[in-house]
Amino acid sequence: MILGIGSIALDTTRTPFRTVERALGGAATFFSISASHFTDVSVMGAIGGDFPAEHLALLHKMGVDTRGVQKLPGKTMFFDSEFSYDMYARKVHATELNVYLDYAPKSPDSLKSPDYLYLGTLEPDKQLSVLRQCSGRPKFVLMDTIEFYIETQRDKLHKTISEVDGMLLNDIEARMLCKESNLFKCAKQIHGWGPELVVIKKGENGSILFKDDIVLPLPAFPLADAVDPTGAGDSFAGGFFGHVARSGGKLDEKTLKQAIAYGTVMGAFAIEDFGVRRLTTISKKDIEARYSKYKQLLSL
Amino acid sequence: MILGIGSIALDTTRTPFRTVERALGGAATFFSISASHFTDVSVMGAIGGDFPAEHLALLHKMGVDTRGVQKLPGKTMFFDSEFSYDMYARKVHATELNVYLDYAPKSPDSLKSPDYLYLGTLEPDKQLSVLRQCSGRPKFVLMDTIEFYIETQRDKLHKTISEVDGMLLNDIEARMLCKESNLFKCAKQIHGWGPELVVIKKGENGSILFKDDIVLPLPAFPLADAVDPTGAGDSFAGGFFGHVARSGGKLDEKTLKQAIAYGTVMGAFAIEDFGVRRLTTISKKDIEARYSKYKQLLSL
Repeated sequence: MILGIGSIALDTTRTPFRTVERALGGAATFFSISASHFTDVSVMGAIGGDFPAEHLALLHKMGVDTRGVQKLPGKTMFFDSEFSYDMYARKVHATELNVYLDYAPKSPDSLKSPDYLYLGTLEPDKQLSVLRQCSGRPKFVLMDTIEFYIETQRDKLHKTISEVDGMLLNDIEARMLCKESNLFKCAKQIHGWGPELVVIKKGENGSILFKDDIVLPLPAFPLADAVDPTGAGDSFAGGFFGHVARSGGKLDEKTLKQAIAYGTVMGAFAIEDFGVRRLTTISKKDIEARYSKYKQLLSL
Repeated sequence: MILGIGSIALDTTRTPFRTVERALGGAATFFSISASHFTDVSVMGAIGGDFPAEHLALLHKMGVDTRGVQKLPGKTMFFDSEFSYDMYARKVHATELNVYLDYAPKSPDSLKSPDYLYLGTLEPDKQLSVLRQCSGRPKFVLMDTIEFYIETQRDKLHKTISEVDGMLLNDIEARMLCKESNLFKCAKQIHGWGPELVVIKKGENGSILFKDDIVLPLPAFPLADAVDPTGAGDSFAGGFFGHVARSGGKLDEKTLKQAIAYGTVMGAFAIEDFGVRRLTTISKKDIEARYSKYKQLLSL
């Protein structure tokens, strides 16, 4: 079982073509729904009194265990952003943390021994507290972070990084974290801090994975248009970690390559519609079909 | 036979680790030496009285036909640039066009019926004049350009683009040329102007090829360090077009994919040493070994 923690939010997303208000969003949401196509997944996070019952029902429908979701007095985290015509640049209108601000993660007993732990976007010391609440060491602990915590909580972030097995972050975050533009050197630095696995996501330019002597660059799945780029990275993480988990935690080159490919495929599905919609309507057959297409594309 | 035209220059390249002065460089040089590993290649361009005999001898040693190189009164084009520690950003200290400024390409009779024509970096109307001097239409005409001509000679550039079969350019050039950030839309625009083939080079992020319904994104060959990034794009072009030529000009998905892979491999060799040095010391066996490694890397 994978336990994933991170933000659960209501997203208002504006594009030149359409605006969708207060849709189900957040890093932990995208991650867990994506991973649910691969393995058992439980989610931890905080919601407020305004969180629509239908959103919880959707998570349940996807088989996501929500016993770790804490309902707190106040409002659910709210994120309002706008994409311009190029669908790259995002302008943030509002980030209201609300209940997420004072959220103190408490793992219920049923979630204290996850096989795999995903520490999504969250304050570094809270990420660490979730790891510390595990009764035994999970087989693999993967973490993400965002620019905000790199800028404001670098020391705490380093402490958390030193205790995990893998780090998954985007190229801007990697360069900012390591103060280094060469991604190979960024990965080497992060390895030096502890994590044996480093996956750097590069959006439309794919990703690059580093572990021991393994260096795996893979392209993004080619899509002419993004309907809504929100959640692509978290969906990538769900596909990646989901495949690692269902493969029994194997970290050989073949398994890692397939995991990156499944992450790539899930990221591509995520951006084809607003919010989590596409991720909740695809079948295992759709995933396998796109995986096969990607595999064929890369076959020389 | 491929005929390639473009700059032939003397390059002074400065890096934090070493400076190499007045080495053999220029787009046509990198292109032709790279392509020489795949097929017969002739080069056109201009040199001055100061062009060292040893540089011509090196081209001959590589099997490059230099009957189209015009020796003009004056000095050879000179390019002086510096890379900082990150080996990405390049600071240009001097671009002295010298004899290249008033160069009027004249194809000798022996080069008037190339099977394949590569129009490298050159003023757009001069690129066109080389095509017009061909006695018959080449099987395939591929062109490149640079930011300078996009900025200063857009109309002439459009005229040349409308007469070629393929365009190969980097992502910055594509976005600038098309005034559009989405590379899929850039390719669509360029297709609309004439070229059936568009290859967009993305440096460390690989490349993406567009032709009819074919969209091929492939990553760069993973290299931790670049010794000298100069000429990587032209070497990519030489490997790409060289493979297309030796495959009889086939443009099916399989051949194009292999051509991109060979371009990727040649670009990776180019940056492993200063100037053209690495390209002139590798064997066919080295190229095949790296191609196999790349193929294995992408095999899911």
